[in-house]
Amino acid sequence: MAASFALDPRLAADTVLVADGPLSQLRLMDDARFPWLVLVPRVAGAVEWIDLDGAQQRLLLAEINLAGQLLRAQGPVHKLNIGALGNIVRQLHVHVLARQEGDAAWPGPAWGSGTATRYSPEARGQLLADLRQTLPTLPAG
Amino acid sequence: MAASFALDPRLAADTVLVADGPLSQLRLMDDARFPWLVLVPRVAGAVEWIDLDGAQQRLLLAEINLAGQLLRAQGPVHKLNIGALGNIVRQLHVHVLARQEGDAAWPGPAWGSGTATRYSPEARGQLLADLRQTLPTLPAG
Repeated sequence: MAASFALDPRLAADTVLVADGPLSQLRLMDDARFPWLVLVPRVAGAVEWIDLDGAQQRLLLAEINLAGQLLRAQGPVHKLNIGALGNIVRQLHVHVLARQEGDAAWPGPAWGSGTATRYSPEARGQLLADLRQTLPTLPAG
Repeated sequence: MAASFALDPRLAADTVLVADGPLSQLRLMDDARFPWLVLVPRVAGAVEWIDLDGAQQRLLLAEINLAGQLLRAQGPVHKLNIGALGNIVRQLHVHVLARQEGDAAWPGPAWGSGTATRYSPEARGQLLADLRQTLPTLPAG
């Protein structure tokens, strides 16, 4: 019997679910320093993007587009950063985050930079509501 | 008249051409610490992956697959790292690099970590020859 998808405990601790996409969970990184989304394909055992099959890869690409548009809808973005690393958490996950000149890690990568600043429950709830309200207004990937 | 594609001078200084793909230049980062490829779409003015059109995005995805397979063909890879940052060099470029536990930046990102160790001309020439010989043996994306 194939193993079923289960979210890595570290991803579960660091992020909150925004919505389910066709392939992936769309999650918000709980770090107020950066507007930061994480896509986690609901594919049991997936580690490398290039090991997904072609249809899954294209779905993930469409979700990356959606995540980028969602971040742009929240405000101006100097640069989107997209990354699939997985050196620490092996479960396949793709980061899509909005960078601003002068932000907490600029111009370096956000990954591994400093310590996350958690949102207040109120701020996180408001941001999640904003993101969920914006999602249906975006063009499908 | 539309501007034509020109490689960013910093990318030109840090990388060497391996081969031309359907969309992108496939280039080797001249840093012996990591087996590290960079894809630079030959699209004038391109900055963000999600601003490419759908056909270009799918070509880039296929090239990322190819780059990953090319790295794996050189030897065991603990983890592929894929990143599109562009905080310093705005011209769209996607990194595909092979990470090993205990490498010079492990488990952090390679981007912005330490100083590049240039290949010797002999080692670089040999690696380029190996990569170019392997390329045609890989399945098309």
